This record gives sequence, structure tokens and C-alpha cells, in this order.
Amino acid sequence: MQFFEGSEKKVEIVVRDEAINLQKLDKSFWENIVKKCNATIISSIQNDSLSAYLLSESSLFVSKDRFVMITCGETILVNSILEFLKTYSPAQIDLAIFQRKNEYQANLQKTSFLEDIKNLSKLIDGQAFRMGDLDGHHNYIFHTLKPFTPPSDDYTNELLMYHITSEAAKILQTPNNKIDNIRELLQLNRLFPEFKFDDYIFSPYGYSLNAINQDRYLTIHITPQENNSYVSFETNLDLSQLSFNLLDHMVTTFNPKTFDHIGFNFNKISFASEYFTLKKSEINLTCGYTMSFNHYSKENDILSHPVKIL
Amino acid sequence: MQFFEGSEKKVEIVVRDEAINLQKLDKSFWENIVKKCNATIISSIQNDSLSAYLLSESSLFVSKDRFVMITCGETILVNSILEFLKTYSPAQIDLAIFQRKNEYQANLQKTSFLEDIKNLSKLIDGQAFRMGDLDGHHNYIFHTLKPFTPPSDDYTNELLMYHITSEAAKILQTPNNKIDNIRELLQLNRLFPEFKFDDYIFSPYGYSLNAINQDRYLTIHITPQENNSYVSFETNLDLSQLSFNLLDHMVTTFNPKTFDHIGFNFNKISFASEYFTLKKSEINLTCGYTMSFNHYSKENDILSHPVKIL
Repeated sequence: MQFFEGSEKKVEIVVRDEAINLQKLDKSFWENIVKKCNATIISSIQNDSLSAYLLSESSLFVSKDRFVMITCGETILVNSILEFLKTYSPAQIDLAIFQRKNEYQANLQKTSFLEDIKNLSKLIDGQAFRMGDLDGHHNYIFHTLKPFTPPSDDYTNELLMYHITSEAAKILQTPNNKIDNIRELLQLNRLFPEFKFDDYIFSPYGYSLNAINQDRYLTIHITPQENNSYVSFETNLDLSQLSFNLLDHMVTTFNPKTFDHIGFNFNKISFASEYFTLKKSEINLTCGYTMSFNHYSKENDILSHPVKIL
Repeated sequence: MQFFEGSEKKVEIVVRDEAINLQKLDKSFWENIVKKCNATIISSIQNDSLSAYLLSESSLFVSKDRFVMITCGETILVNSILEFLKTYSPAQIDLAIFQRKNEYQANLQKTSFLEDIKNLSKLIDGQAFRMGDLDGHHNYIFHTLKPFTPPSDDYTNELLMYHITSEAAKILQTPNNKIDNIRELLQLNRLFPEFKFDDYIFSPYGYSLNAINQDRYLTIHITPQENNSYVSFETNLDLSQLSFNLLDHMVTTFNPKTFDHIGFNFNKISFASEYFTLKKSEINLTCGYTMSFNHYSKENDILSHPVKIL
């Protein structure tokens, strides 16, 4: 059984120092950071505020004072953070947030979240929480204790969608599909005409997209394999400024059986009524963000076939 | 954070040979089998058809031609099976079924199901399935390929209940509670007056019960720790012969947020309408049983607190 963990790990680090401009660092600096978790840079786009790197294992966004790196599979993202801390000392770090979602197959992961944060906290003072139940979808978060005031327009919305169905599954599960067919499905070119896009099709399956406009990004990663399909979407857009419900657009497009929404200083959200809330949690993190984790699912009483594994 | 995996592993092995009586084997034989997965026998009850051992890590039932062993925590149950196969050759085994449910923390388990069955299938021809989605509750099953005809009254019903609430949680989460309070909660003495009971309270929490009558058993294992409470119930009773809905009685007693039902040649079942079906699957195993796996959950849109882990 071929298996690919579309598991998401994420780090966001802020360095507020007028003398430092992370975006101006040599590409080789980021190549080395990315390499430390066994990923590589596939391509990149940039503007004056933001550089977006498409990685073999997801994405990296770099602005003057901040970088956001998202990785999947069996990457050890914490190693990239430790590498970054060799150049920028913990004292220079104003904010660090490290997240890991529940894995499909935790036993295949090279480290656990607890191991990761034990390593991290040797260098950075922080605390950690689990949002969601152990036996259900959940998200782990570690954050620095240092006082931090986020910019007032600093929003993040993440969607983690499982078991996509409908037209999207058919298109995405076609081996070596054309990039135009997937763009057509997502409708993002049409919805965000002012954005610059960079996307990539993995062989035989898998699709990644970065899109940027000024200091705002959208990113999407799709592992469409039947039985374990997984799509993640993330943006730092202020959703209330859009004329349409972007998150609901994503959920409607992929029509997942179940999905999670994670928000940081998030906008008020709503989804199609056919989803039930299975878990709802919220926390005011001492690092200045309000974080929410909600887990949704459809009722599903259609008799399904088991998966043969031997 | 103290953590105890109430994870269930289960094996059922049938040896149909008039010359062999598993129940008549020395207690030392079963002590050795149990020891191989790092468990011990706490106590036992028996009648002419069945011996029931209460284990430090769940239960063992032995009749003339069959044994059923259920273990939890970080036990490596497959080691007990391999030990049994040192005395009874694979050729003597008419049926073997090995199950593992999704673990709370798979990364803490000493072996994965796939590793277990790779070891097993060096000795026994079998096949394996996953019932349920990887990202949700699921159950793995390995079974022998040998043709097997189960007795017509050979039923098994298993309930795996998560996040118990209501009065039950309050009683069970009281440290060093009295056995009578828990028996009162379960009502099993009243409902099954003809059964012989054997139960045990672990310190400071945890409760196990075996009950037998002729060749029928009931067993219940409770790890009530807040945030990760788990209760498993299993019986080989023919539920259609009872004057009450036993499975619904268990679900109503514990009022879990979510639960799974697993059936082998199961009876028609029904539960309180407040639960939604999230997964429903069924398979006709070539070893003669029809197995079902259903996963249920309540809607839960009450804002919950995250769990601090560092």
C-alpha cells in the first residue's frame, strides 16, 4: 500500500529588528534551512513584501520580519527551526509558533510533537497545548512566552480537509493531470486576479500552489490519493474584506467528509449546514493571538468497503 | 501528563481437536502466555464451559476449543500469540483473528499493526483489513485464510466508548472508589443475576470486570482519566435473547461523546438518536464471520478548553 502523509507541520517566526531583513537574505540561506528537514525548493515568486517558495514538501513564505514554513510527509521541521536559531539567537526571536496536526500514521513519523518541543525548549522558553481530542482530529501548538503584539491586520486561517469527494476527487485522482484542469477546479485565478501564482504538479499525483499579492498569501497542498486524500489551505488574507466566503468556497470545491479549521485572530466563519461540529476550542495565547480549532464532519451512513492491507 | 493508553488489542484462536481441551491446561500455561505481553493474571473465575482471567492489562477467556485475549496499554499481544504457536502448531489452528484499534498515541506503541502481522504471517497464512478511515476511528483485523464455519450462535459485540460524561464520569474519576459504587453504576448484577462476576479496581483509577454464565461472557474495562477516558465492553451473548437493549444500556450509562461498535455475526443494533453515524463498514470475512465496524459521535459545539502539555 503506497502511503503519503499529507501531515502538516508549521512554523512561524518573527524577528523585529530594523537592521534585519529576512526577505533580503540569500536564497542559499533558505535552501539550507529547507534542506535541514529534507525538503528542497522547487520554485519561487516574489514581490516587494513577500517571497514565496514552493517546496518539495509544501511551502515557505518570507517577509522582512517573519517567515512561515509549512511541511508535510516525514519531514522533521523542528530541525529547520534549530538551524535558523544558529544564525538568529533566541534573544532575537520575538515570536515563534510551531504547530503539528494529528498524523494519519503517527508511528511512521520520525519524531513526536513532544520530542520536538523538548528539543525546542532547550533554546526557547515556551508552552504548548493540544487543541482537540486525542482520539479525534487535533492540533498541537508550541509558542514563545515573550510578550508580543501582533499587527492589527494579522489574520491566519487554515483549513485541513480530509476525504475529498465529488468532481474534485475525480480530477485530482487522474494521474499526471494538466495544471490548467486543477486551476480551473480551484477558480483561484478568477477569484484573485491581482495575485501572482506559482503551482506545481507532482508525479503521478499531488498539487501545490502558492499565490501572493503585497504581503498576503494563499497556499494549497493536495495529496489526492484515494482513501487518504488530504487538502490543506492557508491564507493570511483578511477574509472580511472579500466579497465571497473563501473558506466555504474551498470546502464546497473539495467537499471533504471531514475538515478542521484553525484560526489565529480569525474572522467569523461559517460553513455549509451539512457539516456537524464535533469539536470547538479556543484559547487566548499569551503570545498575543487568539487561536481557534474547530473540527467538522458530515454524517456518513453509507456502507463502505474496508481497505485490504495484507 | 500522566497517560494511559486504553488501547485494545484482541486475539481469538480456535483449536478444534477432540483430543485438546484448552480450558484444562494448567494455569501456568496461561500465566506464561500472558507474561509474554508483559501482563499478569490478577484473578480468575470458571465454570464447566469457560474460564475467565482478569489481567493486569484486561482479560483472557478460555473454553475447550478457543481462547479470547484482550489487552491494552503498551502490551505486545502478538508475542503471546507467537508463544501459543510454540505449543500448538499453525496446522492445528483452525481460526485466528487478531485485532487492533486506532491508538490514542500510536507513536508510544512498541509495535505497529503492520509489524505485528508481518511477524504473524511468517507462521500463519492470513489477510488483513482496515475498517474505518485512517484519520478517524478504525479497527485493524488480521484473520486466517483456512476455511472455518463458526457455530450458529457465535456472536460477538464490542463497544469502544470515548470521553465518557454524565454521572458515570464523576463516579469513575473519584480516586480509589469503592467497587460497590461502580457495580451500582453498571447495574450488571441486577441485569444478569445468573452470571458469576469478578471485578477489580486499579489504583488510583481504572476498573475491570469479567462475568460468565455457561459459555457466555461479558467484560468491561474502564480507564476513566479525564480528557482521555475510555471504556470498552465486549460480550458473546446473543443480544436478541435479552429483554433489554444491552448495548444501548452501556452507551446510556457512560454517555460517551463518541463510540465504535464492532460486531461479528452481530445482531441488529440500535442506539439513542442523538448519535450520528460517521462511518459504517461491513465485510464478509473468508474465515466465516461477517464483521461490521461503525463509528458514532454526538454533535458537540460547546467551546472546550485546550489541554496544556508543556
